[in-house]
Amino acid sequence: MATDQPELVSELLDGKHRALARAITKIENRTPGYRGVVSALYPHTGNADVIGITGSPGSGKSTLVDKLAKAYRDQGLTVGVIAVDPSSPFTGGAVLGDRIRMASTATDMDVFFRSMSARGSLGGLSTATADAVKALDAFGKDKIIIETVGAGQNEVDVVKTADTVAVLVPPSSGDDVQMLKAGILEIGDVFVVNKADLEGANKTVTELRNMLDLRDAEDGDWDPEIAETIAKDGTGVPELMDVFEAHTDWLDESGRREEKRHTRYAEELRTLLREDASELLEAELEARGGIDELVARIDAGETTPYEVADDVVAPVRDALGD
Amino acid sequence: MATDQPELVSELLDGKHRALARAITKIENRTPGYRGVVSALYPHTGNADVIGITGSPGSGKSTLVDKLAKAYRDQGLTVGVIAVDPSSPFTGGAVLGDRIRMASTATDMDVFFRSMSARGSLGGLSTATADAVKALDAFGKDKIIIETVGAGQNEVDVVKTADTVAVLVPPSSGDDVQMLKAGILEIGDVFVVNKADLEGANKTVTELRNMLDLRDAEDGDWDPEIAETIAKDGTGVPELMDVFEAHTDWLDESGRREEKRHTRYAEELRTLLREDASELLEAELEARGGIDELVARIDAGETTPYEVADDVVAPVRDALGD
Repeated sequence: MATDQPELVSELLDGKHRALARAITKIENRTPGYRGVVSALYPHTGNADVIGITGSPGSGKSTLVDKLAKAYRDQGLTVGVIAVDPSSPFTGGAVLGDRIRMASTATDMDVFFRSMSARGSLGGLSTATADAVKALDAFGKDKIIIETVGAGQNEVDVVKTADTVAVLVPPSSGDDVQMLKAGILEIGDVFVVNKADLEGANKTVTELRNMLDLRDAEDGDWDPEIAETIAKDGTGVPELMDVFEAHTDWLDESGRREEKRHTRYAEELRTLLREDASELLEAELEARGGIDELVARIDAGETTPYEVADDVVAPVRDALGD
Repeated sequence: MATDQPELVSELLDGKHRALARAITKIENRTPGYRGVVSALYPHTGNADVIGITGSPGSGKSTLVDKLAKAYRDQGLTVGVIAVDPSSPFTGGAVLGDRIRMASTATDMDVFFRSMSARGSLGGLSTATADAVKALDAFGKDKIIIETVGAGQNEVDVVKTADTVAVLVPPSSGDDVQMLKAGILEIGDVFVVNKADLEGANKTVTELRNMLDLRDAEDGDWDPEIAETIAKDGTGVPELMDVFEAHTDWLDESGRREEKRHTRYAEELRTLLREDASELLEAELEARGGIDELVARIDAGETTPYEVADDVVAPVRDALGD
């Protein structure tokens, strides 16, 4: 699959931040040709550690991410951050602006910050985020952080594509820990009780530990860690980075990194096929007079959705020799 | 689209309960040929009122549904009930058994009770439920009740295909009403405060009214009603049936019934196409050595998911003349 934008690709691979930004914009907007670009970058990926950070609003994710980015930078590593906000299609600019003003790392181009919002359809955000991660990876970023705005289903789906997933939990009554969604408990490799200076933090740690002990774990599974941080002054951040490191080592040693990568490839392939198929079939419906026309015929009793579907799919079935 | 089971279809249309049960089993299990059956039944549908009943576990849905079924039966109407349980694929028999024992209507074949569980894939439960509703409709049932076990996203998706949606709310503190998911508030045409004899019922009614007043409503929208029932002794059930009736009349007069039907046809068509396409593409991946083989080639750097997707979809694109 040849890209029609070889210059963009080579500039990105040469470390030009402008090219990186342009590539991610293409990916986010699904500009024609974006697939060729991602495909061309593909062979250059696989070197970054991808960290996903999620948790309910107000748990302190942004502050923690900024501190992490700065700390990695201080170690001489390069960092890319993607902030994912599925709730609003147009906040990209605003969030970016705010964060650029407030981030301790804002003037440092080796921390590349970008927000992504929901465009397109089914699973669009997961795909776009995964593609943006690839661009950052191919560019040569050492650490890539995916940060979600909330902890809804879409965001959980996005963040679980990361190699290591941290779930932030604000200190609170045990009742609230009980309410952590099962889906979130399952994806966390590290649970971070942030704002650990607030009352209730110890209790939250205990409650979390109890809940994690109840998880169905298989032999050889990663045993989720609990870390405590005070993101606003950086307390606990070095220790959290050690936990990330330990998880990364475990991924390599256990063979899980390879497993995860294979699962991801298979999912990417299936998602691309689904997107393509749905696009082609929509075009075909359009070519047959449009969905309203077909619905009118169904309503008039002239046909049924089953007949129409059979009819539309028949040439596809023939083409694939099924 | 000819059915290869004309006898099953004609027996169902003749009012044979055994044929109805067999057709729904085919639909639930996606037995080959089920589509032909549903397609043949299609022209005979459109006469039933479909009522969806949802609400959290323990809100008293089953008891209310049994009372409603009996009351409709007493009016000389025929009733079909589909209980939807996405959480467990094998409870069908158990739930059915329990309900047959406990239902006041159990010995009355004019109330046809059937439970459906999640089989198959993406959106499978919605599709299967919608198809089962069609079988009951074509059979000639006057009232069809879709009852969900819980109030999760899948169940909300299923129940909102009904003409009239009732959401059961147990009497409780205002806090709990606040926690009613936005998705549920939006789909309810009628909110039923069941167990209205319990403490807190009046407060719940007030809270609900306040929340409903805050909804974004457009001119000509249905103004959701709040009903109070004590399902276990039947109190409030006739009044609830009047509300259903009023909503049904409104659907006809406002043109919304037609609108809903059209939306449903379009969604059915798209779901069928999606299912077909994904099945064909999976078969195609299999024919190309299987997904594991393709993933191994991606992993070896020989290709990318984008190239594979392009390659697989190319003949489809050609066939559809795109």
